[in-house]
Formats: sequence, C-alpha cells, structure tokens
Amino acid sequence: MPTKSPVIIDLKFDQEQVAAALKDAFPGREVINVLHPGNRNRDLSGVDYAVVWKPGADLFSRAGDLKVVFSGGAGVDHVLALPGLPDVPLVRFVDETLTTRMSEWVVLQCLLHLRQHQAYAVQREKRIWRELAQPEAKEVTVGIMGFGVLGQDAAMKLKTLGFNVVGWSKSGRKVEGFETYDEAGLDAFLARTDFLVGLLPLTPDTKGIFNTGLFTRLSRKGPFGAPVFINAGRGGSQVEAEIVASINDGTLHGASLDVFEQEPLPLESPLWAMDKVFLTPHAAAASDVAALFRHVARQIERHESGKPLEHLVDRSAGY
Amino acid sequence: MPTKSPVIIDLKFDQEQVAAALKDAFPGREVINVLHPGNRNRDLSGVDYAVVWKPGADLFSRAGDLKVVFSGGAGVDHVLALPGLPDVPLVRFVDETLTTRMSEWVVLQCLLHLRQHQAYAVQREKRIWRELAQPEAKEVTVGIMGFGVLGQDAAMKLKTLGFNVVGWSKSGRKVEGFETYDEAGLDAFLARTDFLVGLLPLTPDTKGIFNTGLFTRLSRKGPFGAPVFINAGRGGSQVEAEIVASINDGTLHGASLDVFEQEPLPLESPLWAMDKVFLTPHAAAASDVAALFRHVARQIERHESGKPLEHLVDRSAGY
Repeated sequence: MPTKSPVIIDLKFDQEQVAAALKDAFPGREVINVLHPGNRNRDLSGVDYAVVWKPGADLFSRAGDLKVVFSGGAGVDHVLALPGLPDVPLVRFVDETLTTRMSEWVVLQCLLHLRQHQAYAVQREKRIWRELAQPEAKEVTVGIMGFGVLGQDAAMKLKTLGFNVVGWSKSGRKVEGFETYDEAGLDAFLARTDFLVGLLPLTPDTKGIFNTGLFTRLSRKGPFGAPVFINAGRGGSQVEAEIVASINDGTLHGASLDVFEQEPLPLESPLWAMDKVFLTPHAAAASDVAALFRHVARQIERHESGKPLEHLVDRSAGY
Repeated sequence: MPTKSPVIIDLKFDQEQVAAALKDAFPGREVINVLHPGNRNRDLSGVDYAVVWKPGADLFSRAGDLKVVFSGGAGVDHVLALPGLPDVPLVRFVDETLTTRMSEWVVLQCLLHLRQHQAYAVQREKRIWRELAQPEAKEVTVGIMGFGVLGQDAAMKLKTLGFNVVGWSKSGRKVEGFETYDEAGLDAFLARTDFLVGLLPLTPDTKGIFNTGLFTRLSRKGPFGAPVFINAGRGGSQVEAEIVASINDGTLHGASLDVFEQEPLPLESPLWAMDKVFLTPHAAAASDVAALFRHVARQIERHESGKPLEHLVDRSAGY
C-alpha cells in the first residue's frame, strides 16, 4: 500500500485553534503546518494537498506538485487572486456548521429589524414604556441575492419564521418552494424586496453591486416604508459611502453588515457610530477549523477512492 | 330565522384600532362597544356574547344573560379575577398571529444571547474589531416552560434553527419530536436547560416560580458557563429582585424580559440599566385586534352551529 501523501496546512487563523483541531484530523497521514518554524525550509515537493487561507507568497512554488487545493473559507476570491495558484482542482469550504451559523446570523438580523430592536433600545435609554406598532414577519418579503447552499438554508429558516422569501442568482437557479429570479429579473426581484440579504461571492460582476442605484430599486411598500440592507457575503460587493448616504437620506431604513470593503473596518468609518446599522466583525459564519479539517479529510478520501471531489470552484465564474 | 345575538365589546385597547378592526368583523350581527358614550345606559340583557379585556366593573351585572365570554388576550388570569364573572364558557384568544409574533420574539431573544449581541455592542462602542469564540445553536439546549400552543410553535422554530429544545408542562404533555417533562421531572428538565424560556400562565402554582432557587438548578454546562432566562409569559411568575441579584452574582449569564411584576416597569427598576438584560414593554405578541375578532367570529359560528367551542379555559387549572 503506497504511503498516503502528506497534507500542507497554511492557514492564517488562530494557531492555537488550528493546533487543537489538527489532533487526529488526518489519521495515518503526515500534516505539515508550514507556519511551524521547523517547517520553514521543509521540502514540499511531491505533496498532493494543501489547505490554505492567505498562504505564504512562496507556498505554490515550494509545493510544485499539488493535486488539489482546499480553500480555508467559503469565499474563494482571495484564493483565486493568489499568484502562482496551480491549475488543479480548487475546493471551497462547504460545511453544515458554516451554513447553520450563517443562517443564525441572517435570521437574527432580519428579526432585529422586523422587531424594531433599535427603536426599543432608544426608548429604553429614556426609560420609555411604549409599545410600537408591530408588523409581522409575513408582511415582509426578504430577497436573498446569492441562492446557493447558504442562501437556500437561510431562506428555509426565514420562511419557517413566517417571512416571505424570494431568491436571486445570476442563473436564476430554481429552488422548490421559492420564487426565484435570474439576471434579467433583477428589477422585478428588487421591486418586491423589503429586506435585501446579500450572500454573493465577490466576482467582477458583483464588485460594488450594492450601491445607491440598486437600493433605490428596492420596495418601499414594506411596513417600514423603506428597505433594509443586510450583507454577509463580501465587503467588496458593497459601496459603503453609498450605504451611509442611503441611511442618512432615508433611501434605506437600516442595515446589518458583517463584511466591509476594508477589514478590520477602519476606525474613522462613520458606520461605527450609526445606530440604524448593526455591525459584526466578519463573524457571521466563523470557519470552524475542526469542521474544515473534517471536510478536507472527507474530500481527500473521496479523491483517493476515485470519487469526484465535491464543491469544486468554477474558475470561469469566479466562485 | 331568529335574529343573531349582538356581541358586546369591552376592550381597554387603543380605540381607533378597535373601531377599525370592528368594520365588517361581525356581518349580520349587532356590535355593542360599551366604551362608546352612546352605549352608557344601553340595556345589555339578553345578549349572548362579550369580548373583554379589563371590562367595566358593572359589565357582568348589566349583561346578565351572557352565554360565552371571550378573553381579549392569551392570558386569562386578569379575566378569571374579575368580580361577577359568570359561570359560562370562557374562551382564551389563540390565534396564529399571536403565536407567530411570540415565536418571532422568542427566537430573536435566543439568537441575541447565542450570538453575543451585547458583547459585540460593548466592543463596538470602543470600535474594537474582534471575533469572539462563537458556539453554535446545536451546543445550546433551550428549555421551554409552558408547552402549549405558544411553546410548541417556538420549539419547532428554535429546532429548525439548530437549537436543542426540551419542553416542560405541569402535566408533562407529550409532543412529537421533543423530549418533555412533567411536574415531577422539573429538576431533570432544569439540569439540561441552558436557555430557559418562560411561557407559563399566571396561576397560584406559577406565581414567583422564576426565582433564585430555580435559577441555581439550571445547567451551567452550556457554552457560556451560566444560564440565560427569557420570560414572555407573565411578570407575576418572576421575582425581579432575584433576577437582578442572579445576573449580578453570575448565577445567570443574561436575561430577556417582556413582562414584569408591575407594568409599566417602574422608572426606579434596576432592570432598565442592566446591559445583560434585553427588555421590551410587554410587546412580544401584541394582540392584533382584527385577528381577535376573526377568532371570536369563528368561535361564535361554531357555537351557533352546534360545534364545541375551542380554546376553553379550565377554571380549576386557572388557564
């Protein structure tokens, strides 16, 4: 039986978490964490697999024989931009953990806006006891842009809570139980959408897509008279100066942002101080490193037993 | 065909909303809103139905022939305490609207605690960009006390989001898909519960039940090391001084309260200023007056066509 190929780990994550998760992650297989000082000059030729997130600039030249590259995150825009990325299958991180965490965040944000959490917080500051007129979830249509694994899971959960949900993807992917729209249907989709949820990959097509021009095409017939923008996809898809202006002039009723054009969000960003905007520090769906390694191990097992790899990135589409 | 009995309305709600909702609510039937000045001296004898919330002290003596009394709210403790309440069927308000609104609130509160909303708000004040270690819903067991229509709906929605859910009711009501506990199983139920959700009616048995003694029996094995208390049942079921002390000494990790011993919550209550406590002003599941009248009309129709009334109050149980 031939020796199993080692797996290279180059993940700019918390190294304690990585070390803890690596224990027993790849039984019978050597793990080479290139961030470990002892591996600085290690010969990486002949190694088949690498799991990467913001890898060293020389990784791909050092590891010239890679057969599969695994992205450490769900988004692969950073990985696709890496110089020297070999032309081998690239696998994105898709995991139940990541999906359910993202849906927790999306549902929480939709409920925060629906249930007027900020307005109640303002009243509380002044110790005002006053019930606000309260629409129900069924009076709100959530439109999800990006209707893949993450979008569909969030859609199902929002629907269970009573929200109307519609989906948009470039290809107009059909999903049972939901009305979906394609590229040509964008205007119709936006016109129905009271709460817009962005779960798009970052590609040349989606760069800066969330801007004033798009916000003005959203529904203003919802219970709050103006739409809400919620983004947990990629910061590069949004134009933050236009989000700020749209909140200030009433084009948007509120927003929830987990991703930003520049991360960490610069101290001088006006978003920090806007009380109609809920912020989290790119924490909506933290990659659970243990889950990442389980996913990688499963895919390597498929690969070595002759089954096709799952969750392959389509480089021409950019995701 | 005999004339349909009129229906008496005595609801201390917003009268504009009541008037709007009464339009076409009871076709072919006279509506007598006793709060209307013209009805002050109206003869109410011979009227079969009354819909009440905090009715006038003389209502039941004036309307001596009532056949059914409808509560304007889901809780009936106020109604059961009314002097002169006739010994006729009493129907609680159960409505999809009320149920879904309550579940929105319960799910929102569970997610606020799970996703460390308050801790992120504190960081944001200081413009700190730091991802916190984040447990998943599946690492948390939500225990719901009061496992009737409201509790079961919230349970199903929390389960869809990934939480573990267990139910408690005095009778140990069995509900498919959930482990449930009865009176004798209270300790076992509490020992498993990381987030305790109170949806209990107020009865002699439940008065003051949410106190330090109960909080110390909750699980401390959850991801936050201490339990969370969430109450949207009745304020009379909780001992607020002990909630405050339990938050301050770490017996509780946090709380969400929609109901209070005294409402409006007195200005001097320390709860207003506690940042580990989310507060709403008895707004979790606003009675939608239009929905109330739809429910009453449906039950009257059942009654008059010889079908049994639904949602009858068991006076010996107090709910």
